Amino acid sequence: MEEIKVFCPATIANLSCGFDVLGVALDAVGDEMIVRKTEEKGIRITKITGQDLPAATEKNVAGVAGLALLDKTEYTGGFEIEIYKKIKPGSGIGSSAASSAGAVWAMNTLLGNPFSASELVEFAMEGERLASDVAHADNVAPALFGGFTLVRGYNPLDIVPLPTPKELYATVIHPQIEIKTSDSRKILKTNITLQKGIQQWGNLGGLVAGLFQSDYELISRSLEDHVVEPIRSILIPGFDDIKSKSLEAGALGCGISGSGPSIFALSKSEDTAQKVAQAMERVYEAIDVEFDVHVSPINELGVKQVF
Amino acid sequence: MEEIKVFCPATIANLSCGFDVLGVALDAVGDEMIVRKTEEKGIRITKITGQDLPAATEKNVAGVAGLALLDKTEYTGGFEIEIYKKIKPGSGIGSSAASSAGAVWAMNTLLGNPFSASELVEFAMEGERLASDVAHADNVAPALFGGFTLVRGYNPLDIVPLPTPKELYATVIHPQIEIKTSDSRKILKTNITLQKGIQQWGNLGGLVAGLFQSDYELISRSLEDHVVEPIRSILIPGFDDIKSKSLEAGALGCGISGSGPSIFALSKSEDTAQKVAQAMERVYEAIDVEFDVHVSPINELGVKQVF
Repeated sequence: MEEIKVFCPATIANLSCGFDVLGVALDAVGDEMIVRKTEEKGIRITKITGQDLPAATEKNVAGVAGLALLDKTEYTGGFEIEIYKKIKPGSGIGSSAASSAGAVWAMNTLLGNPFSASELVEFAMEGERLASDVAHADNVAPALFGGFTLVRGYNPLDIVPLPTPKELYATVIHPQIEIKTSDSRKILKTNITLQKGIQQWGNLGGLVAGLFQSDYELISRSLEDHVVEPIRSILIPGFDDIKSKSLEAGALGCGISGSGPSIFALSKSEDTAQKVAQAMERVYEAIDVEFDVHVSPINELGVKQVF
Repeated sequence: MEEIKVFCPATIANLSCGFDVLGVALDAVGDEMIVRKTEEKGIRITKITGQDLPAATEKNVAGVAGLALLDKTEYTGGFEIEIYKKIKPGSGIGSSAASSAGAVWAMNTLLGNPFSASELVEFAMEGERLASDVAHADNVAPALFGGFTLVRGYNPLDIVPLPTPKELYATVIHPQIEIKTSDSRKILKTNITLQKGIQQWGNLGGLVAGLFQSDYELISRSLEDHVVEPIRSILIPGFDDIKSKSLEAGALGCGISGSGPSIFALSKSEDTAQKVAQAMERVYEAIDVEFDVHVSPINELGVKQVF
């Protein structure tokens, strides 16, 4: 194969109780990317549509992630990348992760799959490092593994794929304000109380158990965040109202997607997820905030070839 | 039934990454208790062997837990309790929890099981409150549910039973020094770094996933404690040496049992758990610390009737 077109999913990181460790891939929101082998060495971004992003390889997350992969291969040629960007940077649903993950997954496929999914995560993390100064894996892991993933730890990188209950749907609303991941990290406190830590790891354990058992009630009870949400939600217009209306509309849980400003909800059934979307929309219409809203099944494959 | 004899299991709380939320019940270590219906109201502790413990109902954890149950029944009689204590108080393997859990389980059985396991946990927590000023559930939950349990949260109490991988064995060594739970809690810091919190909930998620998948390697990688062990282990003679020798002997993980001073290890196979026990013994023999050591399968039933 000389060329491949891929879908690069948006992802929700953190998922309330799993700050910096949990993420899930979406199916209805994502970029597309065409990656093509070239005889010329190195990586060139030959086209970007949809967003105004740097095309210089070393300044583009897909370029940087691709270079990390290229550095570990025997392959003597290079790659051209076309990026059809649909996820808005700074939206909090893994825009940079989608590009990083999509690039390395496509290259790995074109090279005959020399690398494991975990190795691809490590390459894609270099794109994340460019985007936010931190090589975190909580978006690139679900983008590459699909479904829900847990980043158990980084030394060494340990990604644990988690099961996807069949009836889960996600709703994501993106208010049209930009919060940079780096800014959003800065407002976090360095310390938390042990008491809040205990609550958080109790909930994280509950969510993981809920996913394994498709126990929607347990998932719902576990989608709590006493650590980060109280701080970051201040930056997001209408957060408390969106959350309470989403829960009233039947969502299992609702919280900040990644570092925001997008807000996610998980629901049991597409119908409920649509009702949650409508409830969220009404809040932003009432306070005149522009938004995008998405309802999506969980994407169990992650990055995938499209035709 | 007018009288019942029960086995009241010892339990390991915390399990490294699950401070205050995880616990597991043992099968080879525990108390026995005979509980008998009486026409006379109230609860009387009529016999205690093995340890010097208060026999006054309001000062005995089994008495207090039993009174909490009695307070919620229509039953007009009372109970007599004989306690055959084998677990040493202050050993860190749930001595008070075994008595509290055993008493309420036995009474519930004699009354025809009017209460759920979760309700029994709430009664038994009153015994824990007497023992350590904190009504924690991380020992009484596994004592009553059996196997591994997660206390997701307390408001309301939410116990999540977790699966037991079939080949897991526990080793517990109890150095003959006493650390009171209340003292052992006092030395903990009120705050932890967010970074350590993230490590801890990553590991907790990994351990829960490992239990669901019987993934012994994942269980092993997840049995880490960056929060409490570095502080509490200072109180336990030879801790670092016991831990490193246990891991060398093949243990999946090793840490402080509850608030200590007992040290636990989990192993895949009884044979390995025995080798770990020998490695632990050699450390204490070399530094002249008196000890008890136990190798035990996981007790999947919790408190149970014996004949």
